[in-house]
Amino acid sequence: MRVVRMGTQTVNLLYPPGIVSSATIVGKKEAEGPLGEYFDEVMPDSLWGEKSWEKAECKMFQQAAEMALEKANKKPTDINYLFGGDLLNQIIAANFAARALEIPFYGMYGACSTLVQCLSLASMLIGSGCAQCALCVTTSHFCTAERQYRFPLELGTQRCPTAQWTVTGAGGFVLHENSSGPYVTHVTTGKVIDFGIKDISNMGAAMAPAAADTINAHFKDTSRTVDDYDLIITGDLGRFGGVLAEELLLKAGHDISGKHIDCGCEIFSIKQDVQAGGSGCGCCAVVFGGYILSRISDSTFKRVLLLSTGALLSPVSSQQGESIPGIAHAVCIQKDR
Amino acid sequence: MRVVRMGTQTVNLLYPPGIVSSATIVGKKEAEGPLGEYFDEVMPDSLWGEKSWEKAECKMFQQAAEMALEKANKKPTDINYLFGGDLLNQIIAANFAARALEIPFYGMYGACSTLVQCLSLASMLIGSGCAQCALCVTTSHFCTAERQYRFPLELGTQRCPTAQWTVTGAGGFVLHENSSGPYVTHVTTGKVIDFGIKDISNMGAAMAPAAADTINAHFKDTSRTVDDYDLIITGDLGRFGGVLAEELLLKAGHDISGKHIDCGCEIFSIKQDVQAGGSGCGCCAVVFGGYILSRISDSTFKRVLLLSTGALLSPVSSQQGESIPGIAHAVCIQKDR
Repeated sequence: MRVVRMGTQTVNLLYPPGIVSSATIVGKKEAEGPLGEYFDEVMPDSLWGEKSWEKAECKMFQQAAEMALEKANKKPTDINYLFGGDLLNQIIAANFAARALEIPFYGMYGACSTLVQCLSLASMLIGSGCAQCALCVTTSHFCTAERQYRFPLELGTQRCPTAQWTVTGAGGFVLHENSSGPYVTHVTTGKVIDFGIKDISNMGAAMAPAAADTINAHFKDTSRTVDDYDLIITGDLGRFGGVLAEELLLKAGHDISGKHIDCGCEIFSIKQDVQAGGSGCGCCAVVFGGYILSRISDSTFKRVLLLSTGALLSPVSSQQGESIPGIAHAVCIQKDR
Repeated sequence: MRVVRMGTQTVNLLYPPGIVSSATIVGKKEAEGPLGEYFDEVMPDSLWGEKSWEKAECKMFQQAAEMALEKANKKPTDINYLFGGDLLNQIIAANFAARALEIPFYGMYGACSTLVQCLSLASMLIGSGCAQCALCVTTSHFCTAERQYRFPLELGTQRCPTAQWTVTGAGGFVLHENSSGPYVTHVTTGKVIDFGIKDISNMGAAMAPAAADTINAHFKDTSRTVDDYDLIITGDLGRFGGVLAEELLLKAGHDISGKHIDCGCEIFSIKQDVQAGGSGCGCCAVVFGGYILSRISDSTFKRVLLLSTGALLSPVSSQQGESIPGIAHAVCIQKDR
């Protein structure tokens, strides 16, 4: 037996795949933030030599994938599956990069929850023996996200305090069945949760209930508590959403406040004028791939619960009066088996 | 050992999951086509009592899911994972339906290849022991696809002969580890293939190379030939794309012409003025879920290779001068173990 189902939403991988390598690419603003030193590459500008921001985002995806492969000393032909996604309509950054990579490809869409969705599926396929090696990549770009979801950048529209700043960044991860770790030991898959938030400038509030629901499910399924983790990391709830998730979990009997960080809060300093913090598929990818994995490597953290959280809206759904549901997936990552 | 990797792109499931139930919902035009009698439910009109076509599409997804559950005698809490997707930006039909279903959810985007992407991942998770039961649902809607990808319907824009007609339809499938079949025995995962087609009215040509590549990989990985199959089914290559795929495979030494059908060609008759045939996430879902599964059930077909094929473009990528890459995934489905 290689896998054990626990409770209703969790799988325990008895032969946990290891994260062999990670590669991170960020924009200038992200590099100027408090975690700047942890990222592998910094784009000189938002176009990176391309003719459009969308093409630059595609290049970020591809370069993060290639850098992760190189660090893992793997060729594309060594990889059984590429799991990837982004925030663009029809995930064109991922699709066009996958064309160049020539690896069997599954396109994912979970909004900002996509990174852990990719890590979850890759880990389950490797842990269960369906694959030996997989590559997970997600990306987001401030300029493409703004113009697709919100306003043309040229308008200079004022942002409200609860708004979040889409991170320009891409993270790539190679997972393998044989590795010296860190290991993905548990996968907790989230449900779509909706508390009726309709404010498209307050994604943190829309995603917080999903994050709380998945963390709660993980604790219930595994009979673990906050004490079993050195750190609980949410993807991009931001300053307001993060507090809301903590409050919801406190009501459920779990005080995570002393051990919780949010990638959206870590990547920028308050001085950088990013309102409630960072967001996007790339936010969690670069903070986890850069900062967190470094701190696991130096044994600062030995076991963490990583969540990425997605707001499942589109401009069309909001214009049609829909609220904003959220989803969050979690993986337990630990330094040693 | 529960799974065996074969060649570079295929997994053989030694404990193959079974398709316990399928449910199909179609629009009026689809019901008037040659396969009309095989579908479970026909929408009276394109809005189905909703205020927008997008909300109608979401309702189709949800109802197909609920009908598949009911036919399988399962509750949402019996399902470990819901895999689903559609063609809308940010897959809002799937996301909003998943909110109502309350099943742990992975959102998929593979354009029209999404059905077999869902079946592939669900089958691998069940076959390898990560799950007992999963639900796969995909949907498409002519009116939402036209206005998102092409022109406002109100313009009555003339269509060219190579254009395809997005099927209004949704298909839901329950897969379980214990079942009397039919069984998903092999999963062949496709790569993104691009022959440089830029004509957005000729998706069949854009997808044909991917279909041929995946069929060829499946034969190579499994050491099987056309003779091992009663039928090879492509999702929505249409009248022109289907012939192109056959020609490409003939060059590779496989003459599939006598055993190949395309769901896009089957669902409408030429008299229905649909140019090159049907397309969309729902096309393959309803033809497979309605017609093909009936013919497997009555033993007309005992082993089929099912592919769904996706054109990985967006209006933005086309406007920026990009070509249209394609992807195709395949599963082998057989009546008996």
